[in-house]
Amino acid sequence: MVKINEKFLTMKKNYLFIDIAKRLKAFTEANPDKPLIRMGIGDVTLPLAPVVVEAIKKAADEMGVKETFRGYEDSGSGYDFLKEAIAGYYKSFGVSLELSEIRVNDGAKADCGNIVDIFGDGNTILVTDPAYPVYVDSNIMAGREVIFADSNEENGFAAMPDDNIHADIIYLCSPNNPTGSVYTKAQLKEWVDYALRNEAVIIFDSAYEAFVSDPELPRSIYAVEGAKKCAIEMCSLSKTAGFTGTRCGYTIIPEELIVKASDGSDVSLAQIWGRRQGSKFNGVSYPIQRGAEAVFTPEGQKQTHEAIDYYRRNAKVMADALTELGIKFTGGINSPYIWLKCPNGMGSWEFFDFLLNNIQVVGTPGEGFGKNGAGWFRLTAFGTYENTVEAMRRFKELLK
Amino acid sequence: MVKINEKFLTMKKNYLFIDIAKRLKAFTEANPDKPLIRMGIGDVTLPLAPVVVEAIKKAADEMGVKETFRGYEDSGSGYDFLKEAIAGYYKSFGVSLELSEIRVNDGAKADCGNIVDIFGDGNTILVTDPAYPVYVDSNIMAGREVIFADSNEENGFAAMPDDNIHADIIYLCSPNNPTGSVYTKAQLKEWVDYALRNEAVIIFDSAYEAFVSDPELPRSIYAVEGAKKCAIEMCSLSKTAGFTGTRCGYTIIPEELIVKASDGSDVSLAQIWGRRQGSKFNGVSYPIQRGAEAVFTPEGQKQTHEAIDYYRRNAKVMADALTELGIKFTGGINSPYIWLKCPNGMGSWEFFDFLLNNIQVVGTPGEGFGKNGAGWFRLTAFGTYENTVEAMRRFKELLK
Repeated sequence: MVKINEKFLTMKKNYLFIDIAKRLKAFTEANPDKPLIRMGIGDVTLPLAPVVVEAIKKAADEMGVKETFRGYEDSGSGYDFLKEAIAGYYKSFGVSLELSEIRVNDGAKADCGNIVDIFGDGNTILVTDPAYPVYVDSNIMAGREVIFADSNEENGFAAMPDDNIHADIIYLCSPNNPTGSVYTKAQLKEWVDYALRNEAVIIFDSAYEAFVSDPELPRSIYAVEGAKKCAIEMCSLSKTAGFTGTRCGYTIIPEELIVKASDGSDVSLAQIWGRRQGSKFNGVSYPIQRGAEAVFTPEGQKQTHEAIDYYRRNAKVMADALTELGIKFTGGINSPYIWLKCPNGMGSWEFFDFLLNNIQVVGTPGEGFGKNGAGWFRLTAFGTYENTVEAMRRFKELLK
Repeated sequence: MVKINEKFLTMKKNYLFIDIAKRLKAFTEANPDKPLIRMGIGDVTLPLAPVVVEAIKKAADEMGVKETFRGYEDSGSGYDFLKEAIAGYYKSFGVSLELSEIRVNDGAKADCGNIVDIFGDGNTILVTDPAYPVYVDSNIMAGREVIFADSNEENGFAAMPDDNIHADIIYLCSPNNPTGSVYTKAQLKEWVDYALRNEAVIIFDSAYEAFVSDPELPRSIYAVEGAKKCAIEMCSLSKTAGFTGTRCGYTIIPEELIVKASDGSDVSLAQIWGRRQGSKFNGVSYPIQRGAEAVFTPEGQKQTHEAIDYYRRNAKVMADALTELGIKFTGGINSPYIWLKCPNGMGSWEFFDFLLNNIQVVGTPGEGFGKNGAGWFRLTAFGTYENTVEAMRRFKELLK
C-alpha cells in the first residue's frame, strides 16, 4: 500500500495566503457591493515596465522563427545574458559574482522551498519568528526539526544569534518579511560569524533589497566579509520589478561555499544544488528571461525605480497615518511592509476580521507568520496610491 | 555542522543530458569545422506556432497596462482559462476531467521530480528499465528504494506487471521515452489492475501522447477503467507544441485518487500535492499560460499538428533507413523516438563516440536510461527534415 508523507497531515490545511484568499472569496460573495482594498498578500499593482514588455514580445517573436527559436537551455541554470545582467547589478552595489555562482529560477519561492532537498536529516534549522511561511513549511514537509529565534518588540523585530543555541541551517530575510526591519551590516556580520563558528549555512532571502534606500544598509549578505563561505542568497524580480505574475528570480551559491561530507571530503553546495536542479527543473521560459534581462538595463532600472518610488510613497502614507493614530509599527522605510501592533489589544485574526468587516481593508494577520506575530498585523505598500490613501482615511475614521 | 544530503554523492555527477552536452562542447571546441547533427536530447527544432507567439505577445501587452496587469495567481495552480482548454482537449479523446483535477506547471520535469515529496519513506518504487532518468534520480535523492521492471528485446520494450513483485509507486511512460514503444489499452489495464490490487499509485508520463496516431492506442491512462482511482498523469507542451524553451505542462490528480493514512483516514493526493505546491511553487508566468491556451484552440491544434506531422515524417525517414540497413529498432510510429540496437555488437557509449567521431551525428546512449539500454541507442525525430535525411545518408554510408 502506498504510504504518503504524513508530515503533510500535521500541517495547516492550506498555505497561509491560499487560506486568506478563500476567506476573502467568501466575504466578497456575501458582500458583492463592498469592494476590498487589498493590502494583504505582498502582490504588486503597477504594470510591468515598458522595456520589459517589449523584451518579452521581441523574444516571443524570436521563438516564432526557425532561425532564432530556442528549445531547452543546455544547463537550465539561466542564459548567460541574464546572469551577466544580474552580476552587473550586484557589481553596482559592490558585490562581485561569477556567472557560475548564479542560477536563474521561476521566482524565489520555489528555490527557497526546494533547497531543503540538498540538506540531510539531523540538521537543526533556525528560523526567525515571525517569518515567511515557506521556510518552516518546506522543512516540516521534509521532516526536519525547526527551532526559532525570536524577533519581537523588545529587539525591534531583529532576532540576533545566541551562542548558547547551536544551528546548522539559518534562514534570514532582510529587509524582513513580514516585519519590515532591516539588518545593519554589523548585525549581519554577527550572523555570518555565528554561522562560520557553527559551520552552518545561512539561507538569505533578499527579495526586498530594492527597497533599501539607505546606502549604509546592506542589500546583499555578500556585503559582509566571510558570507561567501557560509551563505546562499535568494532574490526575485517579483518586488523589484513587479514580476509576481511574470515569474523570475535567482539563487546565488558562491564557489567558496564548501561543506564537509561525513567522510571528511569537501562538497560544493553549488554543485549538488546544480545536480538537484538538473534533474528536477528545466530552466525559465526564454521570453521571460529576456524580460528579466531588460530590468537590469539603464532604462529598465529607471522605469522599475519609478515603481519602487511609487510604493515608497504609499509606505509613507501608511507610516504617517499610523503615527498620527499612535499605533506602534516597524518597517515602512527601506521596506514595502508595515508591521503594526493591533490596536486595543486585539488578536491578529480578530483585527483581520475587524478591518474586513468594517472598512474592507485586507491585511495579513501577524500570527500567520509565527507566534511572535500574535497581536501584530502586516500591511503592504504594493497597492495603488489611491487605495492606500483611502484605506488610511478609513483607518483613521475607524481607529481614531 | 551542516549535514548535506549524501544521497547526492552516490549519484552520477551530472544529469545525463548535461553530461552529453559537456562531451559535445568538448568535441565542437576540438573540431570547429565539423558541425553536429543533433538527434540526442529530445529537443524540438520547429518554432512556436504563430497563434502561440501572438497570444504571448498579447498577454505581455496586458501586463504592461495597469487595468489588465496580473500579479500572483490566487491558487498558483493555473488560470481557469488554461485548465478549461486542457479539459476540452482531454474531452476530444474521451476523457472527462474537473478543473480542480488539473494543475498547470512549468513543464512536466519539475512535477515529475517533485512529486516524491508527497510520498513517505518505506514505499517500494517500481520503474521500468530503461526509463527517463528523472524517475530514478528524484527517488534516489529522496533516499527511496527503487526496483526495476525489465523492458527488453524479449518483451518488445514494454515491461508488464508481475504479481510476484509488490510495488507501491509505479512509473510508466507511454509512448515510451526512450524506447518509443506504446502500451495498448489492454496492457495499461493490466497495470491499472495491478496497482488497484496492490493499493499502489501509478505516475503516468504522457509527454508524447500527441504522437499517437493509431486511434486504438490510449493517449491518457484515464482511457482505462479504474485509472482515476490509482493514477496521476503528467504531460507537457514541450513535445506537443514545441514548448521545450517556453515551459508549460500540467499534472492531473483525480478527485477519486484517495489513499489511506497510517491511522486509516482517507487522504486526497490532490489535496496534499496542492499543499506542497502552495508552499513551494508560485504558478506559471501569465503570458506563457496564454501561449499554452492558444495551443488548444482550433487554429493552435492545426498549427501544432503540422509540426507533429513534420516530425513524424522524420521518424519515417529514420525507420526506412534502419530497415534498409537491417538494424533492429522499436518506436518511430506513434512516437518521436527510435530505439535501435547498436550494430556490430557495439556498446551504447561506444556507438555514441563512433557516430560522433565519424559522421558527427549525436544520439543518446541507451545505457544512460538503465541497464536494459546497454547496447541500444536513442535517436529523436525532432531534428530538421534536412538534417534527418543527411544523418541517415551518413548512417547508410558508414554502416552499410
